[in-house]
Amino acid sequence: MKIAITGKGGVGKTTFAAILSRLYAAEGFRVLAVDADPDANLALALGFPEEIIAGIVPIAEMKEMIAERTNTPGDSFSKMFKLNPQVDDIPDKYCTRYNGVNLLTMGTVENGGSGCVCPEHVLLKRLTSHLVLHNKDVVVMDMEAGIEHLGRGTAQGVNAFIVVVEPGARSLQTYHKIKKLAADIGVKKVYVVGNKIKDQADKDYVLANVDPDACLGFITYSQNVVHSDRADRSPYADSQVVDEVKAIKDKLSALI
Amino acid sequence: MKIAITGKGGVGKTTFAAILSRLYAAEGFRVLAVDADPDANLALALGFPEEIIAGIVPIAEMKEMIAERTNTPGDSFSKMFKLNPQVDDIPDKYCTRYNGVNLLTMGTVENGGSGCVCPEHVLLKRLTSHLVLHNKDVVVMDMEAGIEHLGRGTAQGVNAFIVVVEPGARSLQTYHKIKKLAADIGVKKVYVVGNKIKDQADKDYVLANVDPDACLGFITYSQNVVHSDRADRSPYADSQVVDEVKAIKDKLSALI
Repeated sequence: MKIAITGKGGVGKTTFAAILSRLYAAEGFRVLAVDADPDANLALALGFPEEIIAGIVPIAEMKEMIAERTNTPGDSFSKMFKLNPQVDDIPDKYCTRYNGVNLLTMGTVENGGSGCVCPEHVLLKRLTSHLVLHNKDVVVMDMEAGIEHLGRGTAQGVNAFIVVVEPGARSLQTYHKIKKLAADIGVKKVYVVGNKIKDQADKDYVLANVDPDACLGFITYSQNVVHSDRADRSPYADSQVVDEVKAIKDKLSALI
Repeated sequence: MKIAITGKGGVGKTTFAAILSRLYAAEGFRVLAVDADPDANLALALGFPEEIIAGIVPIAEMKEMIAERTNTPGDSFSKMFKLNPQVDDIPDKYCTRYNGVNLLTMGTVENGGSGCVCPEHVLLKRLTSHLVLHNKDVVVMDMEAGIEHLGRGTAQGVNAFIVVVEPGARSLQTYHKIKKLAADIGVKKVYVVGNKIKDQADKDYVLANVDPDACLGFITYSQNVVHSDRADRSPYADSQVVDEVKAIKDKLSALI
């Protein structure tokens, strides 16, 4: 099963992706978590210790490998992408493992003016499209905020998108855009998770603004998660939130 | 004066950019507001009526003009950018005006798998670098979430970046990344606005985590702004928030 976590900026994609990955790992699944957001830190949210994080080599820094596999020499504005890079050995060779989760990170933008991250997206697209998974294999991709990745088709090989929303119009508009764009790239299953829920009115607002049956469940607004963010800790320590994500995971498993 | 509003997803960039643009317009400045986020709606935040929004032609849909000016025929993965598109006539020809604000929008991703938005970024980069401004001209760019635009150098021609942060570690990490990347593209002035502030502890947290003198001010967490989001209304109606942005604007004007 391959799923991509997406949505407007700031809705809680990385928190949700991290807890979901940890839950699958705890049940004995082989989990590949992919941090596809140059401005996120899925490793931290997964609870990877600082010393392991410091040793992670993100895809963006594997310049030789990307140049070789996507055929992109020279600067990023004068390139021709080779569209079929070899990816089969990437998870084994380049992942970092902790808490039962195998992590692959796209990496950040190291230098201003160094170009777009199109080559990294080509590689990730190829990776998600062509990885052959076995019965208890799960790929969880934490996508970047917004919708450009859908133009690029980065996650076109996934079985489902999960759009994280909060009870506000903007993040629900993003859900509707994503749903349309996902269909364009052949992803028909687009689910919703309502995050930062404070009361029944918040739930009702989300339910009134998404497709019937799209909603996998809700996650209550949690001061613990906010404090995890401040303290650079994993949100996996918040048991209520973890229980809520577990219920969402079980519903998801029954649907795909 | 050209400024770019940036920061992590969900911090309130569009709300701030809209109020700031309206305030400059109210003081008689000629304001060009640029919506550079494919997943934002600066027009709505500026208070443009639906019927005017429906008529806006975003840069992304000016396919012929972009193809001609950036020299990018064919699909987006096999392009060679011409780096010096003609841009001088763009603000006059392609803006939509309301409430004294001239708006240019980059546009959204219309179809999944249709490619990246690199050509649009090249055009915006050229636009911000080469527009000659007069004394009472202001360009306010509302950037997309995250940091890829800094790799692309989209806003390299601005006088200053304003990074909107909220009192949490992630958005402050994004501020530090942006500051470093902005220096790479020659933008030395990087200011901070603390948004969604609930108490003095929130202010102290922001001040403790940014450079001394970087902070232009704070915006109090507002239920009105949240409700504006739900109701698709402009946040310009919230007088406390507008007063706070006015104080920030005055401090900014004294610095650039």
